This record gives sequence, C-alpha cells and structure tokens, in this order.
Amino acid sequence: MEPATGEPTPTTYGIGARVSLHPMSARFEDIILGALADADAARGDLTTRTGVVSTFVGGDEADLLAYLTALIGAAARRADGDHLAASVLLSRGCPGEVTCDLRSGPWASDGTLAAEPTGTTAVAEWSLYPLLDADPAASAGAALDHMEPIMAAIEQAKQVGLYDGSDHYVTRLRGDIADILTLVTTAWRGVGGGVQHVTSHLSFSINSPTETRTPQEQS
Amino acid sequence: MEPATGEPTPTTYGIGARVSLHPMSARFEDIILGALADADAARGDLTTRTGVVSTFVGGDEADLLAYLTALIGAAARRADGDHLAASVLLSRGCPGEVTCDLRSGPWASDGTLAAEPTGTTAVAEWSLYPLLDADPAASAGAALDHMEPIMAAIEQAKQVGLYDGSDHYVTRLRGDIADILTLVTTAWRGVGGGVQHVTSHLSFSINSPTETRTPQEQS
Repeated sequence: MEPATGEPTPTTYGIGARVSLHPMSARFEDIILGALADADAARGDLTTRTGVVSTFVGGDEADLLAYLTALIGAAARRADGDHLAASVLLSRGCPGEVTCDLRSGPWASDGTLAAEPTGTTAVAEWSLYPLLDADPAASAGAALDHMEPIMAAIEQAKQVGLYDGSDHYVTRLRGDIADILTLVTTAWRGVGGGVQHVTSHLSFSINSPTETRTPQEQS
Repeated sequence: MEPATGEPTPTTYGIGARVSLHPMSARFEDIILGALADADAARGDLTTRTGVVSTFVGGDEADLLAYLTALIGAAARRADGDHLAASVLLSRGCPGEVTCDLRSGPWASDGTLAAEPTGTTAVAEWSLYPLLDADPAASAGAALDHMEPIMAAIEQAKQVGLYDGSDHYVTRLRGDIADILTLVTTAWRGVGGGVQHVTSHLSFSINSPTETRTPQEQS
C-alpha cells in the first residue's frame, strides 16, 4: 500500500460510470442515438467508450452528473410517453479493467453537486456498495460496518424527499431524474471519503404502464 | 453477533434476486407478460413480488437459477429477434429490506448448479461484490482483500469459456443465457461461503443491433 502522493485525477483514481438506455419502443434506436447527440454538448472533458451492453463514461463527479442527467433526460423527452428504462453503474477507487492495485485513497473531492431539473419524474431502484477490505488499515480506519454508510445514504434520501420505500436489496427513489442522480452521485462520492472502492447501481423506470404503489405478491 | 444456530433458510438468510426485462419493441408488454406466464411452471417454491422497477424472487440458488433461466430464455424467444435487455441483481446474507442485522454466517449450500441451455446467446456485463466489514472476525477470517474472490470468479469464467473481456468496472461474458446464469449464480454462492453479504449484478444484451467487438472511443 502506497501513501497518497498528491491529489489523484479521475482517471488515475478510476472515477466513472457505465450507462445504458432501454426505450421499450420500436423507435428505440432513434431515441438512443438522438439522446446521445442531444447530450453531446454536456460531454465536456469526459472520456466515453461505447460497448455492446453499456457505455463507459470517465471523469469527475460534477461532469458525470451533468452528462448522465442530460443523457437520460434527453432519452425521456424523446421517448415521448413511451416506457423507458435506464441503468447507471458508478464506480470509484478501482482504476483499470481487471486489476485494482491502486492504494492512494480513500480520497474524495468536495463541493456541492447539483443538476438542473429535467421535468421528468422517474422511479428508481438504488444500491450503494462500500467495498471494504477486512483490514481497517486499508480503509483508513473508517466505518467498520459496511452497512453504516448505506444507512446514512438512505437517511439522506428521506431528508431530501426522494425516498419512496425500501424493497429487498434496493432503496426505491421517486422524483425528477436530476434530483435522483444528484442524490446518488453525492452519496457515492461521500462514502468514497472513507472507503476507497465504492460502487453504486441505479435502475430508472420512466413512463411505466404498470406503475403502481400496490405490488402483487405470490408465494 | 450471534453464533450460527443450525442451517439458515433462504428466507432467513435473505437469498434472492431482483430481475427486470426490457424488450425494445412495441410488443414489450406482451413479451414480458408472456415470459412471466411461460416461466411460471419453473417458479416452484420461490416467493415473487412484482414492483414498479423490477421483480423480487426469493428462494434457494438452484430454484433461482432455474427460474431466471426460464424467464429470460422465454423473453428471448418471444422477442423473436427484437432487441432485449435483462437485468439481474443477486443478493445473499442481508435479509430484510432496510436493515441487515443477521449474523449467522458466512454460510453457503453446496452441490452443483446447472441449467438446461436456452439456445440463445447473449452478451452480459457482470459485477460481483463481496461486502466485507473491515473486521476480519465478522467475515470468519476469510479473504482480507475484497478483490480476491472477484479475481477467482473471473478466472472461472475464463476456464468455462464464457469470458469475453474486461471493461471498466465489469467483466463481459458471452454465451448461452443458461451458462452465463449458471456461472454467475455459482460464483456468487461460492463467495458466500467466506463472506456473509454478497451481491452480484448482471446486465444481458440479446439481439443487439450495435453488437460489435470494436467499441467506439471518444475522449
């Protein structure tokens, strides 16, 4: 384990996201390609790389938040009432593809993260994973219990009015796409101050025909 | 922390999945409802609960594997060449919805997991998260480095011929839907022998019009 040698960059620290758009429409290709074009102005200094299953976006948290909000907001507008799902995976502290050797953290930038409202309300399932090592020294003596930062993030969701309930394995959020992304990006970055490798998964559902607050149960 | 008192059940240990189907087709409702009906015969003793964003499925690993294979395989058949995405979240060792108090593990069943091939090839992005606490005693003195079981799982993917490459934050798999689900379910259960709380995320892409082995890069 190396000591920190100055502030890492988003690239050296492995800060980024993978995102995918799933318009449930015969127009899905037009909606996806149109949203990518619409969001290009918000791409800024981000590195992007389109894969078969999802698109990688690398850069700092403020740029990621702006781009993800622009992209998913544009897809929602272009879906024009059609059902749309979108998935986001955020990761920090494990650069590279196969290995995860960096030990310069835990480290996180500060400053308020914010995004302009998109005008589209979504429901989303959220999970947040502080990937501790079972060695307090490797986590800078931070939270010993991996559930602690998760519970703090759920409390924050309640305070900002986005909390819509807890299901098995996920927290359900409801609100403007921008507000949900702001909460999730802020929580993920915040946990990163105490734990080096932190990931978060977010699944949006927009314009769902089965939207209901009374789930069906079978057993 | 309580000592183990006999073998837990899937319910008391919190073994289950969340799954969602995203057919990129105007027929998406028919494909989803038809696949759910087709897979009902494979539901067995599983508990299911349909939510707004995804469906919860609770039960043991063999039953989960059979059901997920039947469901996603049926959706792929009914998509009939149309583009289909499917997401699976596996979780174990954290029962309940908000809290995660159980400390009866780590524990995992044994026995070979297998599923009949579906005949449909998919590409999938896979991540596996051993959620250690920074306290070796809470993890039964198991892997101190959270990357160790992840690297072992990737090695297993290579051995069975499903490994298609590593991208940022995910491992890419390619093969029959059943074989991918068997690998991922087996790896997730296996890590559970040494770490109580383990989750895994899997995003399938089937019949993608942009399927290519040469990703586009922009920076």
